[in-house]
Amino acid sequence: MLKIGVVTISDRASAGIYEDKSGKEIEKFLKENIENEFEIIYRLIPDEFDKIVKTLKELVQKKCSLILTTGGTGPAKRDVTPEATREVIQKELPGFGELMRIHSLKYVPTSILARGIGGVVDNTFILNLPGNPKAIRENLEAVWAAIPYTIDLIGGDYIESKTAFRPRKK
Amino acid sequence: MLKIGVVTISDRASAGIYEDKSGKEIEKFLKENIENEFEIIYRLIPDEFDKIVKTLKELVQKKCSLILTTGGTGPAKRDVTPEATREVIQKELPGFGELMRIHSLKYVPTSILARGIGGVVDNTFILNLPGNPKAIRENLEAVWAAIPYTIDLIGGDYIESKTAFRPRKK
Amino acid sequence: MLKIGVVTISDRASAGIYEDKSGKEIEKFLKENIENEFEIIYRLIPDEFDKIVKTLKELVQKKCSLILTTGGTGPAKRDVTPEATREVIQKELPGFGELMRIHSLKYVPTSILARGIGGVVDNTFILNLPGNPKAIRENLEAVWAAIPYTIDLIGGDYIESKTAFRPRKK
Repeated sequence: MLKIGVVTISDRASAGIYEDKSGKEIEKFLKENIENEFEIIYRLIPDEFDKIVKTLKELVQKKCSLILTTGGTGPAKRDVTPEATREVIQKELPGFGELMRIHSLKYVPTSILARGIGGVVDNTFILNLPGNPKAIRENLEAVWAAIPYTIDLIGGDYIESKTAFRPRKK
Repeated sequence: MLKIGVVTISDRASAGIYEDKSGKEIEKFLKENIENEFEIIYRLIPDEFDKIVKTLKELVQKKCSLILTTGGTGPAKRDVTPEATREVIQKELPGFGELMRIHSLKYVPTSILARGIGGVVDNTFILNLPGNPKAIRENLEAVWAAIPYTIDLIGGDYIESKTAFRPRKK
Repeated sequence: MLKIGVVTISDRASAGIYEDKSGKEIEKFLKENIENEFEIIYRLIPDEFDKIVKTLKELVQKKCSLILTTGGTGPAKRDVTPEATREVIQKELPGFGELMRIHSLKYVPTSILARGIGGVVDNTFILNLPGNPKAIRENLEAVWAAIPYTIDLIGGDYIESKTAFRPRKK
């Protein structure tokens, strides 16, 4: 069965200071946009480089075809999600970060501060989403259409989705 | 005389499984868009990192002012053209990859998967185009205007082209 | 008091061959867009990697919250500003370079040649602007709105600016 990792990266949420609304927003989006059955493997961790790397590697090993992270993509000192993701992936797909930033410019001029990346390791596609639940949805709406086909190309599990785009076979 | 390298990177085309339509599409575009005489140096090679590096270095040494590659820019395991190109160039020009991706979004949402880069080594400008002939033309139409001036700035040969843009001298 | 570094990087201007209009254009923009008092620390240096690195480090140590460089962002051999900036920063914010390039496409197709980057070191945000005074203004107009909030997030001094955007506190 299709497995999807959802990793909330937040010092405060992981310390129980506030509820993790971001992870829930991702889950909601996935349920609205995926038709076949899937299992979510959920993790809630602080903004620590080593913990992020370890968690991503664990979820890759568990054969998640997709891992969505939320949080830690900004310019502040504690924001290290892109660096940790870069440590794990074999190939970066710069178009994902670019399109999320351009698309979010419609909502706020500060969207250019986001440093989230998309990348591939083995049969897993990892994408860094921002921490803000509203921004999560805006970002997923921008790039979702391309995600299932990306996972096809790297040999991951098939995602059935009416909102996805797959080019016709040549 | 102006020399241009055209490098088709494809396991299947190089094994003779199918015809190289991509290299031909590039040649057609160049003939339509360049007014002065030029020589094309053509290579057809498999998706192998070492072979790509060696071929690019050979064409740089042969004083090609421009090298256009096609193929191997996607997220799949065998796609290593950007990595091999990065091994050869001295300076990356990120605007080329960005504009090709943004422009191609008009045609397919999966254009953000393309990882092609543009970069400079000595007096040569190298650009990675996708493998699909239709996408090659769309990508070249997006960035061609900027290519002859790039080559001016790095001391390559002059490309006479009505579709090129050169800023007026200050 | 808020300190801002303005670094003109140009072989010819630093040799006295022509006047530094670029540094003046930046100063003019800052005076038009910042309401609180600030001090400009100005430097004029040649296109030399080591000198750029040394100057940027000096201005970081002097507690500049913002450093704007001009010049040296193109593809030519002497253009090394982005490389030198990358040597100094801890985090790159790719959205700044992307937006400057996209925005400037409205004016010239060759805007994609610009390689300027934005990045963070300690409490300082560094941004590479092009050398041309007209392009400096176009680029600053594209990204200025996001700069004061970037500096808030990294613990730099507060910039009061009517043209800046700050998201409301959650």
